Amino acid sequence: MNVLVLGGYGFIGSHIIDILSKNLIKTFVYDKNSKEDKNNTFYINGDFSDLLYIEDTIVKNNITHIIHLISTTLPKNSNEDIPFDITSNVVQSIKIMDLCVKYEIKKFIFMSSGGTVYGIPQYLPMNEEHPTNPLCSYGITKLSIEKYLQIYHRLHGLNYSIIRAANPYGPRQNYLSGQGIIANFVHKIEQQQALEIWGDGEIIRDYFDVRDLASLTFSVLTTDKTGIFNAGSGTGLSINEIVKVISSTTNTKPKIIYKEKRNFDIPSVILDISLTREIFNWHPEINIQKGIENYLQWYRKN
Amino acid sequence: MNVLVLGGYGFIGSHIIDILSKNLIKTFVYDKNSKEDKNNTFYINGDFSDLLYIEDTIVKNNITHIIHLISTTLPKNSNEDIPFDITSNVVQSIKIMDLCVKYEIKKFIFMSSGGTVYGIPQYLPMNEEHPTNPLCSYGITKLSIEKYLQIYHRLHGLNYSIIRAANPYGPRQNYLSGQGIIANFVHKIEQQQALEIWGDGEIIRDYFDVRDLASLTFSVLTTDKTGIFNAGSGTGLSINEIVKVISSTTNTKPKIIYKEKRNFDIPSVILDISLTREIFNWHPEINIQKGIENYLQWYRKN
Repeated sequence: MNVLVLGGYGFIGSHIIDILSKNLIKTFVYDKNSKEDKNNTFYINGDFSDLLYIEDTIVKNNITHIIHLISTTLPKNSNEDIPFDITSNVVQSIKIMDLCVKYEIKKFIFMSSGGTVYGIPQYLPMNEEHPTNPLCSYGITKLSIEKYLQIYHRLHGLNYSIIRAANPYGPRQNYLSGQGIIANFVHKIEQQQALEIWGDGEIIRDYFDVRDLASLTFSVLTTDKTGIFNAGSGTGLSINEIVKVISSTTNTKPKIIYKEKRNFDIPSVILDISLTREIFNWHPEINIQKGIENYLQWYRKN
Repeated sequence: MNVLVLGGYGFIGSHIIDILSKNLIKTFVYDKNSKEDKNNTFYINGDFSDLLYIEDTIVKNNITHIIHLISTTLPKNSNEDIPFDITSNVVQSIKIMDLCVKYEIKKFIFMSSGGTVYGIPQYLPMNEEHPTNPLCSYGITKLSIEKYLQIYHRLHGLNYSIIRAANPYGPRQNYLSGQGIIANFVHKIEQQQALEIWGDGEIIRDYFDVRDLASLTFSVLTTDKTGIFNAGSGTGLSINEIVKVISSTTNTKPKIIYKEKRNFDIPSVILDISLTREIFNWHPEINIQKGIENYLQWYRKN
């Protein structure tokens, strides 16, 4: 097994690389950022739009499995330039699928977004059959890529798995990116800054530790199952509850500034992870208290 | 009301123009084909990719309503160049939506595809809530445009209606285009050619007369209802049954060549039209015998 991880330098990718490395799997990280090769992990510095370089990487390294983690946009900015979101994500991913067919890639894993593809919940927790009506272009492009994977499976036999991840958080998450409320709040509390909350703080999300997502990704990689799989904790926490946990972990009482509600925020996301649990014999192992403690430890060291 | 019909010269469009014209509505037909202006109908010869010309058309003619009928691909060829399908349909439609917001268009009607967006039926007839897993890119791009319309409604208040049409047939349908089995079969029978059927002829489709689709489109245009609406007959007929009807109407016994099943053909499409019936007080008025008779009459005159 020679694995290519597109976007493997990022937050989620780095934890997947850790597990692949621990399992002595030869891994090639294709990313716009790179660092020194280490043991079985090799870094290739390239852009997602550079299809020839990606093809070259697949051929030269005899790649058998691909994990696709790249997204050129974020949920919150994806509506600003929708044509860019579509061409840089959907069109480019289709070209990668073509390469998968051409080079007979044995498994293609696509990291989708459980937080955006479903839209406003019709019931909770949401299973994989829940209607999909995203409120942002990011969710629509993820969904389109999912649909094309299903076609490539049917027409060309491409073996794919889609992971619809809820809200992963944990060590190495960039606290300045504007994504990841736990990282951002820990940072602000540690810097004695006020927390900014859009709306009343009652928005519910399904937070789970990035290391649980990484361990699931590894199971998916090594199990022969095609389909769409939710990944999350299976439970929901409001932003106010998250503040309480961080507050007690850091032993501080943060100042909070409540700002106007944003029209693309979904009121509640809780994913039903029973299919994923069953198929991959996986479950999240790190609870929210432990996870936030770990993030705080990482933050203080960095 | 000044209506712009994108793709109004085509098969479906021409029937919509008939109704608009009969109702004395000032209508502008933007199409790559054009003909002489007539009464309240004005033809503008332009390409769908020429956004400046479309904008110019909207501004100069004080357009208030838009009906979007353009598709640059067909279901059967849409998988051949998926990036083209996406950029020419989805990206371009988004730019039209931007124009709708900019010029405060009162209503935007998008002709979607009930025959492709649902994919393999989980139940029949399929209502608008049925899961959407298209088997061809054509269905995915239609679906993506639908999702973006929902976002534009939420973010910018765009008033849209989506018509998911099953299999319209009827006068003026091109019998050589490769789409439209009734037109094609009537043509072949009249030319004493053998009919080609992919598979065993037991594939079921929901055929309805294009004039019923046009009358629905007019109701949708003049009713203030946002949402997704199925359009069809509400019943299904197999290809073999269609052959029987044409056969008895033409009083011939056609020769049939059965060819290999195609992997993008959905086994069965029957749309549940009860929501559309109720909301628009509409129902299909032309049954299959009458519709095929009418098509034959038109064919023999042309």
